[in-house]
Amino acid sequence: MAPMKVLDPDAGSRSVVDRALSILATFQGTRSRQALSDISRNSGLPIATCYRIVQRLTEWGALERDTDGRYRVGLRLWEVASRAPRSVGLQRYARPYLLDLYETTGFATHLAIREGVELVSIERFHNPRKNPRRPIIGDRYQMHISAIGQVLLAYAPRHIQEEVLAGDLPAFTTHTYTDRDTLERVLVDIQRTGYAVSDRQTDLENVAVAAPVRGFDGSVIASVSLSYPPETGDVRGMVHLIRLTATSISRTLAAAGYGDVAN
Amino acid sequence: MAPMKVLDPDAGSRSVVDRALSILATFQGTRSRQALSDISRNSGLPIATCYRIVQRLTEWGALERDTDGRYRVGLRLWEVASRAPRSVGLQRYARPYLLDLYETTGFATHLAIREGVELVSIERFHNPRKNPRRPIIGDRYQMHISAIGQVLLAYAPRHIQEEVLAGDLPAFTTHTYTDRDTLERVLVDIQRTGYAVSDRQTDLENVAVAAPVRGFDGSVIASVSLSYPPETGDVRGMVHLIRLTATSISRTLAAAGYGDVAN
Repeated sequence: MAPMKVLDPDAGSRSVVDRALSILATFQGTRSRQALSDISRNSGLPIATCYRIVQRLTEWGALERDTDGRYRVGLRLWEVASRAPRSVGLQRYARPYLLDLYETTGFATHLAIREGVELVSIERFHNPRKNPRRPIIGDRYQMHISAIGQVLLAYAPRHIQEEVLAGDLPAFTTHTYTDRDTLERVLVDIQRTGYAVSDRQTDLENVAVAAPVRGFDGSVIASVSLSYPPETGDVRGMVHLIRLTATSISRTLAAAGYGDVAN
Repeated sequence: MAPMKVLDPDAGSRSVVDRALSILATFQGTRSRQALSDISRNSGLPIATCYRIVQRLTEWGALERDTDGRYRVGLRLWEVASRAPRSVGLQRYARPYLLDLYETTGFATHLAIREGVELVSIERFHNPRKNPRRPIIGDRYQMHISAIGQVLLAYAPRHIQEEVLAGDLPAFTTHTYTDRDTLERVLVDIQRTGYAVSDRQTDLENVAVAAPVRGFDGSVIASVSLSYPPETGDVRGMVHLIRLTATSISRTLAAAGYGDVAN
């Protein structure tokens, strides 16, 4: 007798776990506080289903309920996530060097890794009184718009490069590379020189220089950048600074045995 | 007809969501990389069940699989958790002040919140070359052992204080308060003076001073501390510094409308 679909041992658990995850995903990249109706709409789940799962997530601490009834990501999920080796682990090693670079120059420093065709912002230091709104730690950004992203793209597998180059390359300023051929030449240059320069490509207030960070096996696992107002700096000096920082971080990662698969 | 238990609409989803969460919980406070057999043992779930749910969590990105087959907390969970207002939200506001204090003094600064009868470490700055192993961001610690914890305990609801005072108060050094009456007097003092001093109570290398951070409504939502070698500092001066920092952070939180329930 062929098993009935309803008896598939995976069916129940798969769908419920997926629903719980799709609820958590509505908090990613959107507002940090949502009413149940928002969660229902953003997850595409019926409100009754949504309510039951949200209750469980809240009891556990993955979500928390405000006194106004809206939900937010809970402390316990953050506690678990504080164990993520690819973000928090890397951040811990890289942080002192980013901080030193920020303190030395007074300019914003940034650490990011590639995830698929986007970059994820892992750590940054910047003058809090200037308060630039981006990048936000934990957010994703397109790679072609910034020096830090171009470095990650230059060392990405060919199929990732192809996907980015074949896709939409929106302009953030008039300086953004929006042309496939130009961007492709830039990537080759980055691989050759080991650094990227973005002159007001992300916004009109900053020039940024970026360099690759390597794990213990030499593979590029992250990128660091330094951003400064165009009138301030000599590009060559800034490139030396970011390459030195990237090298120091890579050296620390090598000593710790940290790489793509390491802790 | 009474509904059969198996038809309870909550039963299936509750148990599966709970199982998924109990798997995530095995990564909290334990090793950051676990084999499937470790996860099964630590979660108390049969290996087959564990495998199915781990597969789903991995496909979504809550977990990631190393090339050696072990699992680690995934980048996507960290991305979602980066939205947690009570930790990351607070951290963003407090961070510049902690950093200023660290840069000014060269001593370790620390930010923590209370969660039940424990404190959770949210942010710290310290000299990376000295590399103290604790506190680890995202980890929990008992409140009675440190100045930062004593402040959180002093402003905790009475039933939380009772639970801590009635519980186990292990000694970390010979200076740790392990006696209920002493600790109770200390808490009253903290409420009166608005600061705590821990003289080598956590370890023998450091004195720490701590002060409460208040949200927009005046309630204590966090605590900050400054740790320094006993021979270095004048306690009074250090208390001024930590109270000034706590006040600056509280002022920023008030301006932002950030409190216990705010974003």
